[in-house]
Amino acid sequence: MLTLHHCPGTCALASLIALEESGLAHQVKRVNLAAGEQHSEAYLKINPKGRVPALATERGILTETPAILVYIAQSAPAAALAPLDDPFELARVQAFNSYLCSTVHVAHAHGRRAARWSDDPAAMETMKAKVPQNVADCMRLIEAQMFEGPWVFGEHYTVADAYLLTIAGWLKGDGVDPADFPVVAAHRARMLERPAVERAMAVETA
Amino acid sequence: MLTLHHCPGTCALASLIALEESGLAHQVKRVNLAAGEQHSEAYLKINPKGRVPALATERGILTETPAILVYIAQSAPAAALAPLDDPFELARVQAFNSYLCSTVHVAHAHGRRAARWSDDPAAMETMKAKVPQNVADCMRLIEAQMFEGPWVFGEHYTVADAYLLTIAGWLKGDGVDPADFPVVAAHRARMLERPAVERAMAVETA
Repeated sequence: MLTLHHCPGTCALASLIALEESGLAHQVKRVNLAAGEQHSEAYLKINPKGRVPALATERGILTETPAILVYIAQSAPAAALAPLDDPFELARVQAFNSYLCSTVHVAHAHGRRAARWSDDPAAMETMKAKVPQNVADCMRLIEAQMFEGPWVFGEHYTVADAYLLTIAGWLKGDGVDPADFPVVAAHRARMLERPAVERAMAVETA
Repeated sequence: MLTLHHCPGTCALASLIALEESGLAHQVKRVNLAAGEQHSEAYLKINPKGRVPALATERGILTETPAILVYIAQSAPAAALAPLDDPFELARVQAFNSYLCSTVHVAHAHGRRAARWSDDPAAMETMKAKVPQNVADCMRLIEAQMFEGPWVFGEHYTVADAYLLTIAGWLKGDGVDPADFPVVAAHRARMLERPAVERAMAVETA
């Protein structure tokens, strides 16, 4: 049994969707970020980084969304959530996930988490002010250069779709009008029709 | 023949070391970041993100260090650069690489690349001021929680070692005293004795 340490509204949603798609037995354990539970002694034993997601397996804990997503895909090959037998295609999926993780999520984080990178409230405000532009730039690049359609990698639904849905779900909060990105918006609508995504969203809003 | 689009002093070093370790036929093409070549029309056709590294393969271009590193490992299984047959262990390597990519490299980037996240010069100075603390926090976590020794993953040398050497090579420039992190410093010394690393460093300083 896998246990996903999860909090609604975070990037842990991507791992939750992947688990739901995978058919692997799993449970969700909620980490109350608003109450600071991620900094508790108990949680830091699970993930010393004090973040979600963390995936507890029978062999130990895994962290970091791109790592967890490929792990889930490899653990459930029948679900075909990544091109496991093709290193080049797998690397393309990984590159997409890595871009979401290290550029798009980071662009987003400068809104509510600017205190990570500056101690000055005025500076944080300037970072927050740039979030809409940076996130919109990322979405523009995704629509123009990366997204094949109907899924991120054409006809092949992958864990990258779960991750894109997750990050693009933050657009409004980032001050970006989702209507400006019709390809991403249509992807979202397509995703929400999948039973696995529906189940994950039910956990998310429970 | 693989072609690595590379610039000295950047995270492209990790991919270069992995290529040297792999035994795969490759060449290096220098991208002059100081002259802004990454924003040229020709380079944006290679990598629309305007960054290095990019790895040109016979099937197309790959970007993002964590993706390239696992691709190289999978393309040269005899070199044993990652635990390819063990999804859990591979995920641990991937989690380490993802942490370097999305947290440590990002912490570092707030020194010289703060303009990505704010348009205000005074704000950028406050970000720069916090870099030593943030990077040191990351190194502390790596030494205390992640590094097994003698390599990142114990007796198994992996692409994660190439990536750690690369990022930890920036400590002085980040205002962190490498002597404060003896585990990372010893790892560096160990790495520099490897012929593949020596060859990569020769390209780096050519």
